[in-house]
Amino acid sequence: MNTQPPLLFALDLTGTFAFGLNGALTALRATRLDVVGVVTLGMLTALGGGVIRDVLIDALPPATFLYWPYFALAIGGALIAFVLNRWLGRLTMPLTVLDAIGLSVFAVIGASKAVAFGLGLAPAALLGVITAVGGGTIRDALVGQVPTVLRSELYAIPALVAAVLTVLAIRFDAYGLPVALGAAAVCFVIRMLGVRFRLNAPRPPFASP
Amino acid sequence: MNTQPPLLFALDLTGTFAFGLNGALTALRATRLDVVGVVTLGMLTALGGGVIRDVLIDALPPATFLYWPYFALAIGGALIAFVLNRWLGRLTMPLTVLDAIGLSVFAVIGASKAVAFGLGLAPAALLGVITAVGGGTIRDALVGQVPTVLRSELYAIPALVAAVLTVLAIRFDAYGLPVALGAAAVCFVIRMLGVRFRLNAPRPPFASP
Amino acid sequence: MNTQPPLLFALDLTGTFAFGLNGALTALRATRLDVVGVVTLGMLTALGGGVIRDVLIDALPPATFLYWPYFALAIGGALIAFVLNRWLGRLTMPLTVLDAIGLSVFAVIGASKAVAFGLGLAPAALLGVITAVGGGTIRDALVGQVPTVLRSELYAIPALVAAVLTVLAIRFDAYGLPVALGAAAVCFVIRMLGVRFRLNAPRPPFASP
Repeated sequence: MNTQPPLLFALDLTGTFAFGLNGALTALRATRLDVVGVVTLGMLTALGGGVIRDVLIDALPPATFLYWPYFALAIGGALIAFVLNRWLGRLTMPLTVLDAIGLSVFAVIGASKAVAFGLGLAPAALLGVITAVGGGTIRDALVGQVPTVLRSELYAIPALVAAVLTVLAIRFDAYGLPVALGAAAVCFVIRMLGVRFRLNAPRPPFASP
Repeated sequence: MNTQPPLLFALDLTGTFAFGLNGALTALRATRLDVVGVVTLGMLTALGGGVIRDVLIDALPPATFLYWPYFALAIGGALIAFVLNRWLGRLTMPLTVLDAIGLSVFAVIGASKAVAFGLGLAPAALLGVITAVGGGTIRDALVGQVPTVLRSELYAIPALVAAVLTVLAIRFDAYGLPVALGAAAVCFVIRMLGVRFRLNAPRPPFASP
Repeated sequence: MNTQPPLLFALDLTGTFAFGLNGALTALRATRLDVVGVVTLGMLTALGGGVIRDVLIDALPPATFLYWPYFALAIGGALIAFVLNRWLGRLTMPLTVLDAIGLSVFAVIGASKAVAFGLGLAPAALLGVITAVGGGTIRDALVGQVPTVLRSELYAIPALVAAVLTVLAIRFDAYGLPVALGAAAVCFVIRMLGVRFRLNAPRPPFASP
C-alpha cells in the first residue's frame, strides 16, 4: 500500500492512528474491557476494513501484515486511548475530525486498490466503503452494539460518494493525488456536515419510533 | 457462477432477491435502521454466504463481485423491503416460501461449486450449508440477535440434506439439472414442513426452559 | 498441518476436541440452542481461529477442510457437550485444563504455520494469537456476549507469549519439538496461574466499575 503518493500515504497512516484511537475509545464507552480488549478492538477498528478488502480482492497476506507501521500506529492509538480514556472522552470534536479523516482516506485508497487488483468499478466502490466502515462494524458487533454505520448520521454515504468519485476518476484516466485528495475532502465535508446538523439517512416509512 | 444450467441460475437469482428482501425485513423487525442499514443488511444476507464460501475455496474475488445482477437483485430486494416494510410484514407465508427457495438453491449451488474447486465431499457439503445460512447468520450477529439457524425450526438441516444429496450425486456422476432441482426440492419440502408443524432440532437433555 | 511432529499433531487434535467440547458448553450456558446450534458453535470455536489464519496467510482451502479428523473431533466434542451438558457443567477444572491445552498448542502451531507461509515475525506471532482465540471470539459474538478474551483473566496474553517464543525460536533456528512443547507449556502455566489466582490484564485507569 506504500505505492500510494506520499501525501496520501501519510493520510492513510493518520487515518490508521485515528481509527485505532477512536475505535478503542468507542469500545471503552460500550463495555468493560482490559488492556488486551482495548488494544484488540483498536486494532480491529483500524485494520479490519483493509483486511476484509485484501481478503476479498485476493491481495494476501493483507497489506497490514506486511508493513509494520500500520500495526504500530493502530496499537499506539489504542494504548493512548487506554491511558488517557477519561481525559480524551471530553474531546469529542477533535476525535470526530480524526475519525472523518480516516473514513475519507480509507474510502479513496480502498476503492483505488480494488481497481488496481482488477475489480470492476461498482465492486471497487463497494470495497472502498467496506475498507472505510468494516473495522468499526466488527468492533460494534463484538461489543454487542448495533453498528453505528447501520443506524445513525451520515457515515457510509460520504464514504460511498468518495469511493464512486475515485473509481470514476480512474475510469476516465484522471486519477492522481489532486483527485484523491478532492474525493477524500468531499467525503470529509459531507461527514462533518452530517455530524454538525445531525443529518440521518432516510428511515423506513411508518416505522415505529 | 453463470456456468450453472439456466434454470438453476434463474433460481439462484430468485434466491438472491428473496434473501435480500427477507434479510432486510428481518433486520427491520429486530432494530431501528436507516436506509443504509437496511440495504447493507439485505446485501449481507443475500450475498454473505456465497462470499464466505468463495473466500474459503479460494475463488477470489467472489463471484458476487464479478457479476452485477447479484448486487442489483440483493439491493433491489432490500429497497423493496425498506419501502413496503409495513405492508410486507403481514405477508408471512410468501416470504417464507421465497426464503426457502433461496435456502434450497444456495445449498445445492454452494456444494457443487465447492466440489468444482477441488474440495472433498464432506467439506463441500458443509460449504453448501455455509452458503445457505452464512448470510443470515452475519445479519443476526450484527443486529444483536442469536442467529435463527442456531436455535429454531429446521433450517440448517434441510440445507445439509440438499448439500449431501448434491455431493453424492456428483460422486456417482449423476449430477445434472434434474438432480440439482430434486435436491433443492427435498430441502424446500423439509423446510416448509418444519415451518408448518413447528418442528425443531433436538434440544439438550435436561436443559432449563 | 499434519507435517507437524507427531506429538504436536496429537496435541493439536486434543486441542481441537477440547475446544469443540468447551465451546459447545460455553454456548449452552449463554443461550438456548438446539443440536444444530451446539454443533455449529462447537465447530466454530474449535476450527474458526485456524480458518481465519489460513485465510489471512492464503493457505486456502483451510487445512481444516482438507483433513477430516479436525471436523470429526470438533463435532464429536460438541455432541458430547450436547448429551452430557448437565453432568459436564460441574467439571469446571478438567475443562479449563483441556481448554488451556488447546489455547497453548494453537498459539504455537498457528505462529509456526504463519512463518512457514512467509509472514514476518510480528505478524506471525499475531496470527498465532488469532489461531488460539479467534474461534472463541466468533462464538461469543454469535451468542451475544462480549468475547471473554476482551475482558477477563489472562487469555490472549499467554497465547501471545507462546507465539512470540515460537517465532523467536524459528528466527534463531532453534525451533523443534522441544521448543514447541516448551512454548506451549509456558502458555499453559501462565493461563492456569491466571485462572487460579484470578489474574486480569490491567484495566483502564479511572474506569467506572
